Amino acid sequence: MPQALQQVNTPLIGVPGGRHLLDTPALLIDLPAMTRNIERMAAFARSRGVNLRPHVKTHKSVEIARRQVAAGAIGVSCVTLGEAEVMVQGGIPGVLITSPAVTPSKIARLIRLAQQARPGDVMVVVDNPQNLADLARAASELTHPLDVLVDYGAGYNRTGAATQAKVLELAALAAAEPRLRLRGLQAYAGNLQHIVAREERSAAAAGLRETVAGIVAAARRQGLNFDIVTGAGTGTHDLDSQENAFTELQAGSYVFMDAEYSRVLADGDQPSPFETSLFVQTAVVSTNAADWVTVDGGTKCFSTDSGVPLVAKGADAASRYAFFGDEHGKLMPPTGSQGSQAQRPALGSRVEFVTPHCDPTVNLHDAYHVVEGGTLVAIWPVDARGRR
Amino acid sequence: MPQALQQVNTPLIGVPGGRHLLDTPALLIDLPAMTRNIERMAAFARSRGVNLRPHVKTHKSVEIARRQVAAGAIGVSCVTLGEAEVMVQGGIPGVLITSPAVTPSKIARLIRLAQQARPGDVMVVVDNPQNLADLARAASELTHPLDVLVDYGAGYNRTGAATQAKVLELAALAAAEPRLRLRGLQAYAGNLQHIVAREERSAAAAGLRETVAGIVAAARRQGLNFDIVTGAGTGTHDLDSQENAFTELQAGSYVFMDAEYSRVLADGDQPSPFETSLFVQTAVVSTNAADWVTVDGGTKCFSTDSGVPLVAKGADAASRYAFFGDEHGKLMPPTGSQGSQAQRPALGSRVEFVTPHCDPTVNLHDAYHVVEGGTLVAIWPVDARGRR
Repeated sequence: MPQALQQVNTPLIGVPGGRHLLDTPALLIDLPAMTRNIERMAAFARSRGVNLRPHVKTHKSVEIARRQVAAGAIGVSCVTLGEAEVMVQGGIPGVLITSPAVTPSKIARLIRLAQQARPGDVMVVVDNPQNLADLARAASELTHPLDVLVDYGAGYNRTGAATQAKVLELAALAAAEPRLRLRGLQAYAGNLQHIVAREERSAAAAGLRETVAGIVAAARRQGLNFDIVTGAGTGTHDLDSQENAFTELQAGSYVFMDAEYSRVLADGDQPSPFETSLFVQTAVVSTNAADWVTVDGGTKCFSTDSGVPLVAKGADAASRYAFFGDEHGKLMPPTGSQGSQAQRPALGSRVEFVTPHCDPTVNLHDAYHVVEGGTLVAIWPVDARGRR
Repeated sequence: MPQALQQVNTPLIGVPGGRHLLDTPALLIDLPAMTRNIERMAAFARSRGVNLRPHVKTHKSVEIARRQVAAGAIGVSCVTLGEAEVMVQGGIPGVLITSPAVTPSKIARLIRLAQQARPGDVMVVVDNPQNLADLARAASELTHPLDVLVDYGAGYNRTGAATQAKVLELAALAAAEPRLRLRGLQAYAGNLQHIVAREERSAAAAGLRETVAGIVAAARRQGLNFDIVTGAGTGTHDLDSQENAFTELQAGSYVFMDAEYSRVLADGDQPSPFETSLFVQTAVVSTNAADWVTVDGGTKCFSTDSGVPLVAKGADAASRYAFFGDEHGKLMPPTGSQGSQAQRPALGSRVEFVTPHCDPTVNLHDAYHVVEGGTLVAIWPVDARGRR
């Protein structure tokens, strides 16, 4: 097979100025910024007395998961079984699968994975009595019980039981089933993460904390212990960690940040506590149009679900990007400056962008190009890219 | 490394009803429908006396390219050098790279590729005198001249020289350069492909044909022969093949079709001449919400640049899909039927969708699950996925 892009760029590792010689488009990590983000969130969780089990759907990388665990995370959260398989294979402990495993194929894979891992290192959420019975039947093949958390819809209702009564019913079923071990509760409110107005987000999160505390108290009265209460994303990590409603946070995007979350986490004059550490480097491949230059990153390089990439380096920061097909972007200098050649990046020059939404953008790339200043210091695979 | 999805599903090949047992989400090809599309476009091109060099950015598959060539295509078009590398490695002849190779890294890869392939089997477009000089310098390493086509912006101006004068200037430079061989002209009007109103699309395409014919005539008067005049997408294939303006078509999406192109190619009561042959199969993973069920395909499974997936099988066709995060979709029964349990797909059941936009959706998947009726007959890799 032809060389993958990471192999094309491997000879540039350690070469002075290698960042500016990359085969493009290339997904970049600013290593010092990412390291600060990892340390900041770990310190934040410690200061609040909650555990951190960061979501790897953002980065899908064993190397980054290792760094998160080394900084204090108790494990990782995964949305797909394929992500969990990659993490267990990579030696990452404490893997929580945050979406139900429902079809026979997925349940068979889950059981194989749970058997490979140490007891307790693979946990899965459940939101349906039929699914719970299917898991229990399959778990009879295991030499240890299967760890489950009951999933609560939390008003978002992507997955999860819809009411406290349904949560308690599932928890009682799990507790009564010897082939399962009830570990806790998941309450993830995806709909709150991206509310930009802090007061509105804060009020909604307070309501969720109250509901979750009520569910946990009711469970305790029935002798159902939710040792783990997990939830929270990057958008609500500071809210969900108040009042001991949650025992752990599953925020993920903080490691990279993106255009969207930077808006959400900025608080008045205070910028986000996390820095943008993820970028995409493109090259200018055509300069014939009067009002734009064309760069080699399009809909197969940047996710299209949340706005457009923002210029970080290599062009006037006020230039606007527009999608221009699978492999191209239109980069327009600021209005009023079209006549100025100084504003137009030259053919072959590099333009780096902040990603519009980090998770689905990462999923379009096979490798991270890890940089410190102008130096490429490593290339890491996006190990779980495309794993379902 | 953990098993990739194609390996998970490989044991299902040939198993009766295997289509309904797949690990999900799974990208599906309806093989008879795709085969008819390939044959129809080949027959259409023959009937118009034009060549067909279909664009592989749609499918990124050596197997599908082989079938297109077997049906009469003279080669394939590629937007990235990585796609071209995969096709040459797979033995596909007549590879045209439809975007300029500009950076030193890309030019070095192009030269290596041209040397590997038979003379004439790798061609690249050029839209800039500086890039032309760079290519000529690099081509001195080749044992044969490098084949180039001059790229004309065609009013779209993603890449391409902006005017007839600039096209002729580039053509003269290429013709005068012994290390290059001038092969023709590219005029791709991406902006015309998706105009739904047929009369408007037709008028715009007629204007382009006139311009292209004018450029070619002017070139001939200067002794510059454009043997190849390439352009056209699925949206304008029947227009661009009129009046001998183009010698070949580079349409790609016709092989699969999608929600968007089906709207464009329908002509009054006449449906599109091409059938939808690409689908994504999801499974229902949560059924607790009152107004929807949740399926396991989200923004990492369907492209988000052009509307939403449409139900093809497994649920009421009038159900609406909404994106629901990286790995999930919200599937809502038709308004007014929320109370009817019969309308709600059961937990674990399969729902298949027409993709909103085929090219970037394919790019999210590692493998095609090739089906005939209820049988999985093959699994093909998306060979060039992620190749830049």
